Amino acid sequence: MLRFLTAGESHGWGIAAVLDGMPAGVDVSEEELSAELFRRRKGYGRGARANIEDDRVLIASGVIKGKTMGAPICVIIPNNDYENWKGKYVPILAPRPGHADFAGMVKYGFDDCRPVAERASARETAARVACGYFAKKLLEKENIKVVSWVVRIGSISAELPPLDERMSKKEVSERLFELAECSELRCPDLEATERMKKLIDEARERGDTLGGIFEVAVIGVPVGLGSYVQWDRKLDARLAAAVMSIQGIKGVEFGMGFGLSEMVGSEAHDPVTLPKRPSNRAGGIEGGVSNGEIIFIRAAMKPIPTLQLPLQSVDVRTKEERSAHVERSDVCAVGSAAVVAESMVALVMADALLEMRGGDRW
Amino acid sequence: MLRFLTAGESHGWGIAAVLDGMPAGVDVSEEELSAELFRRRKGYGRGARANIEDDRVLIASGVIKGKTMGAPICVIIPNNDYENWKGKYVPILAPRPGHADFAGMVKYGFDDCRPVAERASARETAARVACGYFAKKLLEKENIKVVSWVVRIGSISAELPPLDERMSKKEVSERLFELAECSELRCPDLEATERMKKLIDEARERGDTLGGIFEVAVIGVPVGLGSYVQWDRKLDARLAAAVMSIQGIKGVEFGMGFGLSEMVGSEAHDPVTLPKRPSNRAGGIEGGVSNGEIIFIRAAMKPIPTLQLPLQSVDVRTKEERSAHVERSDVCAVGSAAVVAESMVALVMADALLEMRGGDRW
Amino acid sequence: MLRFLTAGESHGWGIAAVLDGMPAGVDVSEEELSAELFRRRKGYGRGARANIEDDRVLIASGVIKGKTMGAPICVIIPNNDYENWKGKYVPILAPRPGHADFAGMVKYGFDDCRPVAERASARETAARVACGYFAKKLLEKENIKVVSWVVRIGSISAELPPLDERMSKKEVSERLFELAECSELRCPDLEATERMKKLIDEARERGDTLGGIFEVAVIGVPVGLGSYVQWDRKLDARLAAAVMSIQGIKGVEFGMGFGLSEMVGSEAHDPVTLPKRPSNRAGGIEGGVSNGEIIFIRAAMKPIPTLQLPLQSVDVRTKEERSAHVERSDVCAVGSAAVVAESMVALVMADALLEMRGGDRW
Amino acid sequence: MLRFLTAGESHGWGIAAVLDGMPAGVDVSEEELSAELFRRRKGYGRGARANIEDDRVLIASGVIKGKTMGAPICVIIPNNDYENWKGKYVPILAPRPGHADFAGMVKYGFDDCRPVAERASARETAARVACGYFAKKLLEKENIKVVSWVVRIGSISAELPPLDERMSKKEVSERLFELAECSELRCPDLEATERMKKLIDEARERGDTLGGIFEVAVIGVPVGLGSYVQWDRKLDARLAAAVMSIQGIKGVEFGMGFGLSEMVGSEAHDPVTLPKRPSNRAGGIEGGVSNGEIIFIRAAMKPIPTLQLPLQSVDVRTKEERSAHVERSDVCAVGSAAVVAESMVALVMADALLEMRGGDRW
Repeated sequence: MLRFLTAGESHGWGIAAVLDGMPAGVDVSEEELSAELFRRRKGYGRGARANIEDDRVLIASGVIKGKTMGAPICVIIPNNDYENWKGKYVPILAPRPGHADFAGMVKYGFDDCRPVAERASARETAARVACGYFAKKLLEKENIKVVSWVVRIGSISAELPPLDERMSKKEVSERLFELAECSELRCPDLEATERMKKLIDEARERGDTLGGIFEVAVIGVPVGLGSYVQWDRKLDARLAAAVMSIQGIKGVEFGMGFGLSEMVGSEAHDPVTLPKRPSNRAGGIEGGVSNGEIIFIRAAMKPIPTLQLPLQSVDVRTKEERSAHVERSDVCAVGSAAVVAESMVALVMADALLEMRGGDRW
Repeated sequence: MLRFLTAGESHGWGIAAVLDGMPAGVDVSEEELSAELFRRRKGYGRGARANIEDDRVLIASGVIKGKTMGAPICVIIPNNDYENWKGKYVPILAPRPGHADFAGMVKYGFDDCRPVAERASARETAARVACGYFAKKLLEKENIKVVSWVVRIGSISAELPPLDERMSKKEVSERLFELAECSELRCPDLEATERMKKLIDEARERGDTLGGIFEVAVIGVPVGLGSYVQWDRKLDARLAAAVMSIQGIKGVEFGMGFGLSEMVGSEAHDPVTLPKRPSNRAGGIEGGVSNGEIIFIRAAMKPIPTLQLPLQSVDVRTKEERSAHVERSDVCAVGSAAVVAESMVALVMADALLEMRGGDRW
Repeated sequence: MLRFLTAGESHGWGIAAVLDGMPAGVDVSEEELSAELFRRRKGYGRGARANIEDDRVLIASGVIKGKTMGAPICVIIPNNDYENWKGKYVPILAPRPGHADFAGMVKYGFDDCRPVAERASARETAARVACGYFAKKLLEKENIKVVSWVVRIGSISAELPPLDERMSKKEVSERLFELAECSELRCPDLEATERMKKLIDEARERGDTLGGIFEVAVIGVPVGLGSYVQWDRKLDARLAAAVMSIQGIKGVEFGMGFGLSEMVGSEAHDPVTLPKRPSNRAGGIEGGVSNGEIIFIRAAMKPIPTLQLPLQSVDVRTKEERSAHVERSDVCAVGSAAVVAESMVALVMADALLEMRGGDRW
Repeated sequence: MLRFLTAGESHGWGIAAVLDGMPAGVDVSEEELSAELFRRRKGYGRGARANIEDDRVLIASGVIKGKTMGAPICVIIPNNDYENWKGKYVPILAPRPGHADFAGMVKYGFDDCRPVAERASARETAARVACGYFAKKLLEKENIKVVSWVVRIGSISAELPPLDERMSKKEVSERLFELAECSELRCPDLEATERMKKLIDEARERGDTLGGIFEVAVIGVPVGLGSYVQWDRKLDARLAAAVMSIQGIKGVEFGMGFGLSEMVGSEAHDPVTLPKRPSNRAGGIEGGVSNGEIIFIRAAMKPIPTLQLPLQSVDVRTKEERSAHVERSDVCAVGSAAVVAESMVALVMADALLEMRGGDRW
């Protein structure tokens, strides 16, 4: 069983994670891990913070002579900015709509929302990407690959090959991923990328923010991961939790997802043919079990909830109306969220693989 | 911690569940539980099977003098039809597209798909509704109520109050639920219900099936359930897994969900005002924590994958093309799925409540 | 992952369990399962109840054509005596020392101890033996065998081959098990068995009860089950929890256990030689991992806490002194506890095996 | 739910842990934590390593303004000696009897035992003590205190107040703890301490090692922690796993433990009297639930398995006989193990408390 716990606050000493359950014998390196973290960090629309985060990363345990050793892996990402923040405390008195600020303060009994903002921050997702890196390296040994791309930023959609093709053709998925890696927004439509960038510029000028939609594809999946036998073992349930747990995600669908609900059965399902199925509307999972096709997930991200032109809020001490707290933040981070989603998806897939194959070594 | 395991096959001895972690002191009855099971079973579009299932239900443990006693609750729903099936074995040689048939057979090493079909069947959801009943009774003690209604069957959408109102106004939610309980399809638009019924009739005649969309609302939720501190403690992640685990569900969203991805931040988030917020686009969860507003979930169900006019498949022995196996089945079960979703949502909410309040007794 | 939940009260409708995670393809039968339950039930010193319990057992799910199917297994053991108890309620007003009566009543907020006594009863262990049966059948496929015998009842110890031999020699373990199966007390020293029976007779006459010590050996264990990498994955920790969780158990040790604490290192450890080690003082586990030798566990059971000549207690309503509640009970059940321990040990071993080998099918 | 994962190897970058589930509002400090780590490290019989370990400790997350904030706590204990080890690799070719060396190498597929020795090392317990510190601080808020002392080193037993008194009298427990804190071996019999030290000196000279027995007492426990309702919720099962998981522990008992197995029921159980019971032979737990008395645990530690005068082993490459690998190590570490046991016990107790009381804040 793969399990992991992340720790760390946005302006604290750093971010860390412990990943338990990695089999022995998987080649890994800090360089590759750094590169993966860089993929999360970059992107048009990310704020100044993303630049401060240079994510020097340390694999503090679990690896010997370049290979995992079965032992828990500890990854540490120190906060370069920590010396500037140490000892300072800037209270957040006006909860930011869209954040956990208000609910977290009430839950944990704080006087202001600072402690909530520190931990609820998407900065935490660096630790998830770090854990996901190891999962990806394990999957790589079985030729399973997790890729993602952005299909929409705010009101602008990318022009992409039809959904059918994106879902069912390995070559299309791989090509879209390659293109996405060339785009500043991780969008494979490079022309749309430019329009999206303008939209981001405009939003930034207004002090506003943007969300969007991304897709994650898992290529090379064996038949039989997950199980239909118990609700919490269904692969789609586990993937849905993993993706929905990412900061800002409000919707998740598999294959044609919501679109399937409008179709009739005779058009919605994928005929069974050998060796490959002619379509993949189900998105690679039937009855909670991988069926050998591409696992295809789409997720919706809401706009970043920290606005420079702040929304209406109240002062938690006086209960009077005031503008929400303003904090340095991104304008748009859909491309980064897609990378985080790759990581979370990889962790679930690797876990399911260990269940099927046994978990000691590879 | 609330945890439960269900067991049982579609044509086996019966369906059972053990629910562990219910606090002591909650009033329950077999009559109410039967009524709840009946809500799952009924519905226009359900097949003959739904009528055979009369769901005589036994609370075999965990209740004494009408109250839960802290001990595990075992619920047993015997299969009335078992005597007719006992000892018979009808192999499924042509996997049904959309079912776990093929993937499950490969995974577990069967010669045909019958053992998969038996357990992957949505008959299992009766056990979930049984567990959910106890969770609902616990929530009731805190005036938390879980309701649902159908908003779409195939191509036909209900005309309902605007999404904004459905999500933010308790009275609207409650009224929609009342109306849904009067509809044969659990759709609060009784006029649309009639058109949907026709659509179902037409599909049945063609040997086809339908899916749809339903909404679940949790009313009366306290602030602070779930947590932002660790990915697997986020309330929305847990709810997404719970709902996505239901047979046939392919998409889940919270509040405005996918719609939020197209909006700008200044329009997407809900201003913070006291005592109540003016809107609830977030669907009652911010940062993975309940914020005191209605928790609002929407889910998409694909058409039932067992068709009377079967899809293309292959014979698992000969590898030759043939039509998929045909089995007695429903034409449409969106209303039932909504009841199952209420149950799964109630179980997650009750679990989160126990975490916050402690779990011995109520 | 193997997981199971048991349910049921002593005088309720029956006892049930759901076991999730059994791989497909293991041969099982209700006859064998009944025989296993009979092993738990019999024994000199067991009360009248043990005779009423004829443990008609039903495998209600998870098995098709005599083989496990990967699906959850539900086992139901109806209570033959239920019709006599139905609707009756005999409160327990004077908590029995040694039982959960008092603490459970306070915890769950009851007015008397009856609800506690009903669930805390060792009757529940029938469900564990039922689950253990399936685990044993899985282990059998790998030629792993779990056996047990009683070495002490009250003040009387069996004369057995030296501990060294019992722990390290497969033939000795197997022979002791065979003899134990012939003894009314599951004690391989048949002469001591007679003296123990007399001790039990005397205790019964006095209204008193007895405990004792038993040993469990796991033969044929592969190297590498469990892990040293995280505290909760250590095989000995998991086995200790499993055995200590059995009603009445107050001590658990591995190999020479407490005896090792008095030895020096040069005498305490088992030299490493190939293919087999010359001794097994560690009891088959080093650093939390199975080392290929016999896993050897010894456990202490306290005397049955329900006495016919009751201990001092108080009336929970009046707070006045009175004798503890008296209930039909056993005088001695060490042999039964040993069978339960076999089952719990088998479940842990099977779980560890699935982790190493993968869990879909066998 | 409190959960924690530790990470780190003996000669690696350092040791770390993430503890998830701590409520908000508990006062903590790095100074106190360092002092707690020092308690684990010190002790007559500990090797040179214990001196190198100065355990500079960093609370890297989860604490703000001196209070826990509900967020995961990350503790980091860098290895002062790391610069000397970095890049070096000293293979272990002859597995040390008593260690996981051999079994771990086979399990994870290594060529030598070094990767096993690195993680299986008791150095890891520093991370447990760090986590335990936070649990203790939480318990402190409810006036629950976890203490320990050593009662035997090798063949030498301490002369202490009778077991009855140690188990049932708060003042006695507290006094023994105070005395233990003054002893270089954490043994409250200061005269015996001197004889034990000599025994250690003699063992060291011979290249031999020693084990022993310690006791842990939890004072001030409320009634009702843990539960009898399901096997894995029993407080004693959970405590047994926690203590048995500590490196070197081979036996665990509660209250009179193995001694109870020789007694008759009328002498073994503790009469129920109000407000306090006259005896505590059960060790504070009946039926898996805390009964309000002192929770009393005794554990046996085997002699340290790394001997300077090594035991017989084999070369894993040549399969020829040779002496076991020799590594810098302790002669005796029973006092340290007792501190680790306090920590593990505190973590289980705090977890059970959160279940009963709810886990958001204190």
